[in-house]
Amino acid sequence: MLSTSLASLNSPRSMSLLIRSSYVSQSHLNLFQPRNSKLISFTDRIPSKLVFVSSFNHNPFVDLVYKRNPTMQSVSSSSMTVKSSLIDPDGGELVELVVPESEVGPKMAESEAMPKVKLTKIDLAWVHVISEGWASPLKGFMREDEYLQSLHFNSLRLKDGTHVNMSLPIVLAIDDNTKEQIGSSKCVALVSPQGDIIGSLRSVEIYKHNKEERIARTWGTTSPGLPYVEEHITPSGNWLIGGDLEVFQPIKYNDGLDHYRLSPKQLRKEFDNRQADAVFAFQLRNPVHNGHALLMNDTRKRLLEMGYKNPVLLLHPLGGFTKADDVPLDVRMEQHSKVLEDGVLDPETTIVSIFPSPMHYAGPTEVQWHAKARINAGANFYIVGRDPAGMGHPTEKRDLYDPDHGKKVLSMAPGLEKLNILPFRVAAYDTIEKKMAFFDPSRAKEFLFISGTKMRTYARTGENPPDGFMCPSGWNVLVKYYASLQESDESSKQKAVV
Amino acid sequence: MLSTSLASLNSPRSMSLLIRSSYVSQSHLNLFQPRNSKLISFTDRIPSKLVFVSSFNHNPFVDLVYKRNPTMQSVSSSSMTVKSSLIDPDGGELVELVVPESEVGPKMAESEAMPKVKLTKIDLAWVHVISEGWASPLKGFMREDEYLQSLHFNSLRLKDGTHVNMSLPIVLAIDDNTKEQIGSSKCVALVSPQGDIIGSLRSVEIYKHNKEERIARTWGTTSPGLPYVEEHITPSGNWLIGGDLEVFQPIKYNDGLDHYRLSPKQLRKEFDNRQADAVFAFQLRNPVHNGHALLMNDTRKRLLEMGYKNPVLLLHPLGGFTKADDVPLDVRMEQHSKVLEDGVLDPETTIVSIFPSPMHYAGPTEVQWHAKARINAGANFYIVGRDPAGMGHPTEKRDLYDPDHGKKVLSMAPGLEKLNILPFRVAAYDTIEKKMAFFDPSRAKEFLFISGTKMRTYARTGENPPDGFMCPSGWNVLVKYYASLQESDESSKQKAVV
Repeated sequence: MLSTSLASLNSPRSMSLLIRSSYVSQSHLNLFQPRNSKLISFTDRIPSKLVFVSSFNHNPFVDLVYKRNPTMQSVSSSSMTVKSSLIDPDGGELVELVVPESEVGPKMAESEAMPKVKLTKIDLAWVHVISEGWASPLKGFMREDEYLQSLHFNSLRLKDGTHVNMSLPIVLAIDDNTKEQIGSSKCVALVSPQGDIIGSLRSVEIYKHNKEERIARTWGTTSPGLPYVEEHITPSGNWLIGGDLEVFQPIKYNDGLDHYRLSPKQLRKEFDNRQADAVFAFQLRNPVHNGHALLMNDTRKRLLEMGYKNPVLLLHPLGGFTKADDVPLDVRMEQHSKVLEDGVLDPETTIVSIFPSPMHYAGPTEVQWHAKARINAGANFYIVGRDPAGMGHPTEKRDLYDPDHGKKVLSMAPGLEKLNILPFRVAAYDTIEKKMAFFDPSRAKEFLFISGTKMRTYARTGENPPDGFMCPSGWNVLVKYYASLQESDESSKQKAVV
Repeated sequence: MLSTSLASLNSPRSMSLLIRSSYVSQSHLNLFQPRNSKLISFTDRIPSKLVFVSSFNHNPFVDLVYKRNPTMQSVSSSSMTVKSSLIDPDGGELVELVVPESEVGPKMAESEAMPKVKLTKIDLAWVHVISEGWASPLKGFMREDEYLQSLHFNSLRLKDGTHVNMSLPIVLAIDDNTKEQIGSSKCVALVSPQGDIIGSLRSVEIYKHNKEERIARTWGTTSPGLPYVEEHITPSGNWLIGGDLEVFQPIKYNDGLDHYRLSPKQLRKEFDNRQADAVFAFQLRNPVHNGHALLMNDTRKRLLEMGYKNPVLLLHPLGGFTKADDVPLDVRMEQHSKVLEDGVLDPETTIVSIFPSPMHYAGPTEVQWHAKARINAGANFYIVGRDPAGMGHPTEKRDLYDPDHGKKVLSMAPGLEKLNILPFRVAAYDTIEKKMAFFDPSRAKEFLFISGTKMRTYARTGENPPDGFMCPSGWNVLVKYYASLQESDESSKQKAVV
């Protein structure tokens, strides 16, 4: 643990740092395009007259750093009582929907009499997500007014007139039979894929599930072959049911990885325990190579240069549904733990945890969800890569999304003004230095780009990637995984022959 | 002209009326579902502590009417200098992009040397729309950051952090050849379908035109058969060009209807001339029947009851591209003028003008554009019907949009908080009273619904609709039109036979 004193932690606050994160559409800053229109303070959010601090100007993490004009401090002094240095969750309060232990018995008994809604594995993951407050201030599956705002505006308007980001419809589909069984009941019990009642929805509202419109507005295409659509939406019912969620106990998977599944509340506690004064989140669904590690370590270095005393990395692999050719969660978690054991990332300033959301592969729409959920877990910096949450077009030979749209949309998204977006700097294998390094276009020929496909080919053929691409113990995890795939491929081929 | 004194006009202002327009999702008010979260004042927009005025509570135009707490008045007194009682245009200032006469010569000469972009008829309509400020604060065809915000958020964030509504991408497509000819030029000349240079775009930005994504996110479907898509998007180029627009003179059509085409500035002037203290807009692309008239007259009555002294109706037929089976603009304008001549609508308190926008038939997405553009023309009340801007699904036997989504989305749309949404009350033919009347569900059997299709059948077969459905002179315009259609049908059939 770093020996950071509370006094030093106060430094960025007492400096009243303000980061102007303004997305510049015709910017010449390709690697670093910061955000739109809002001034973000780490102490409060009252915009104030600003004085430019030129010494920070070189820092590529922000386009401009300002210090509040001292004459303005009296205006905002009333909001200076900060309990934790962590960013506020959306809506001001973290939603938690697990019923207190004393009420579980009566609530469960009550739910026995309610009409039942059977959940799929993906539905259950969303129950998990909502119940822990990743989607704060959402308190259950969306009713129609929330659904429509999400679909059309990627945000929800709160009672006080402010907006929170909400780019993916978080909805529960039911079929005609279930709708009929529910009738005019106002409450339903939720039944896990294993048959257990795990919670309930109250004050329910049932409305039409126009799948075509939902898909078109979420993905920007209705092409066949979208993984989440084929797995989850196409087979689902013609109705959506919204309502207030309660779960009877925290959702667990019993797959040996539950200890990695920290809730936003647990993460916030852990960040406070470590006396983090900045949290930067890295969303991933792939193995970590040394280019990622370089980026994450470089981010911490730059946050330290900005005056933070203890920036902590949230290395946050996605744990829900992924498409068939992604590396499975258990293999990724083993690989990530090797990377930390190997010291490529510093365990003292890194928290590895699983983000329970299913993956939509919905590009610019989904990356907003990925960022927003991390605000709720306490992250105030979010690293965004090229083509986040993107994939190849299912039926055409091109990327489904413009690779730059993710970070552009993220930088302009309503409700994300308080989050600092850190665009990914491109790392590649430097064949001269024999290590992963930030790509230098002036000596482009000396860099080698190792794609996911290339990595898979290395692992499958047993060939080693260049030295310094990934720590050997992490690489071995992948080699083992791809070997097991080949074995099962061959054994199924043999079975087919037999 | 009504003899409304300026003193009496001040009445709603001096009362400091605030209308709370809060959309209630599970409301039992079916005909009147007001809007979300914002308090709207006609004098300024500083939210203040409110006192409920119960005497206004019965009024179906607003769910609640408030009076500002007198103790708060000092806070907002600085913003009490109101030049006109009309609502502010989006962005605070009406955009006008017609070059001053003294500069036309040099500007035209300059544009001769620029690369040329040839406009379609629909492109030209958008030039018209942008140049007159209907899309304020938009100052030209969208650059990519505006396009992405429109597509994903239906709104644009301004420099001061506020949002204006912008639900339709207002973009100009160019093909590969044109892009190549433009090269690195920063300015292009715009050439009308007739071959005249009519303006220019400056500081241009060219970016990819992903038609599939644009269509999916705008219409919520990629089905073949969407009229605007087939007419305008599918045949268009693979690139979009954004930039600052200038036009050399006001756009005219020389179709005998230009005198109906008042710009937002002209409309605002006219509303001021008539000393309007409320303007309610009625968007339409169909003939006006007595049910519409009932609704519009009833709206005025209710606004008078609310304390307005001179509410003026903007009867605002859409004049741009419409689908083939809609009644053409010239026929509709003739029909509308008969309705006014006949006294069904009061010419003293009605302004009939043409809204120059092309029609997308994009339902909930487009209705926001229809409402937003009318704010810029000075309207602070907007009447919204069932399934606004909707149509049948092009390939399935159902409405393309849920008929209730239009008003729901409109009531929650970012940037439209200052507009009062007035949902359409359903009017039908009362067979007992022998006139159009608001539908009374308690005696449903006594009402006759006359659909557009039914109306067309009447007109085609020469059968008269029931007495009191439409003024006879207006009806005759339609009979003549449908008769001419049949003649041309028959003559083309004869030609085909020959």
